[in-house]
Amino acid sequence: MACDLCQLLAAPAEGVLIWSDHQLSVVAVDEPEYPGFTRVVWNAHVKEMTDLDAADRHRVMDAVWAVEAAQRAVLAPEKINVASFGNMTPHVHWHVIPRYLDDAHFPSPTWAVAQRGSAPEALAARRALLPALHAAIIERLKVPT
Amino acid sequence: MACDLCQLLAAPAEGVLIWSDHQLSVVAVDEPEYPGFTRVVWNAHVKEMTDLDAADRHRVMDAVWAVEAAQRAVLAPEKINVASFGNMTPHVHWHVIPRYLDDAHFPSPTWAVAQRGSAPEALAARRALLPALHAAIIERLKVPT
Repeated sequence: MACDLCQLLAAPAEGVLIWSDHQLSVVAVDEPEYPGFTRVVWNAHVKEMTDLDAADRHRVMDAVWAVEAAQRAVLAPEKINVASFGNMTPHVHWHVIPRYLDDAHFPSPTWAVAQRGSAPEALAARRALLPALHAAIIERLKVPT
Repeated sequence: MACDLCQLLAAPAEGVLIWSDHQLSVVAVDEPEYPGFTRVVWNAHVKEMTDLDAADRHRVMDAVWAVEAAQRAVLAPEKINVASFGNMTPHVHWHVIPRYLDDAHFPSPTWAVAQRGSAPEALAARRALLPALHAAIIERLKVPT
């Protein structure tokens, strides 16, 4: 069975790939309730973080922290949520999710049952910041975090 | 309002604290469906990983990978799940969760709706490995991961 992330990296749709190099890709996630939701993906098909060596793990996490820092700087959310599961797609990837007091699941994780709908104007305001967010991610990935 | 994690670290109940030093604590989580569920907690009350400097972030994550490696070695789960939310308790902590094909939520994250009950004998077999797991965590935290 083909891996969803291998397929996505092989032919990313327009606007999906924010940044990449020979080891890592940073991808915009199309999740309507969560503008700014970003994934950091190890390019190679590797199952667990501890299948990578220490230097490669640090590279992955430094990219995660670059995304977190950019989300905080541009979106000013209430909290950042960071998670790596891979139960369905066992290919190292990190979810980096800006959370807000009024978002659909707060204070639960976004995988829990939704607690409310999101106000369209709040989502529109967050979507308007996505070009600035992507620019900030690219800028932070150029320099050590 | 007092922080749950600050309170837990100030007076951990018997058997909860697996390992600690001046910066980090590794804690056994009492989650009946998930024997081996472990948390890595930064001792100081800090909200986000990017509030820590790069060296401290590396220390936190190296402890997370030590726990992941110990879980893989002792429990041989299907997958490791790693997450840091902090929406309710904004004090840096990581959930490190061994996942199995027959666990209550697989392949969903453990925060989603449960898909089944766990077989008592499977849980008992996993619980029986906890002393070995805790010994392996302690051993791996003595050496660089």
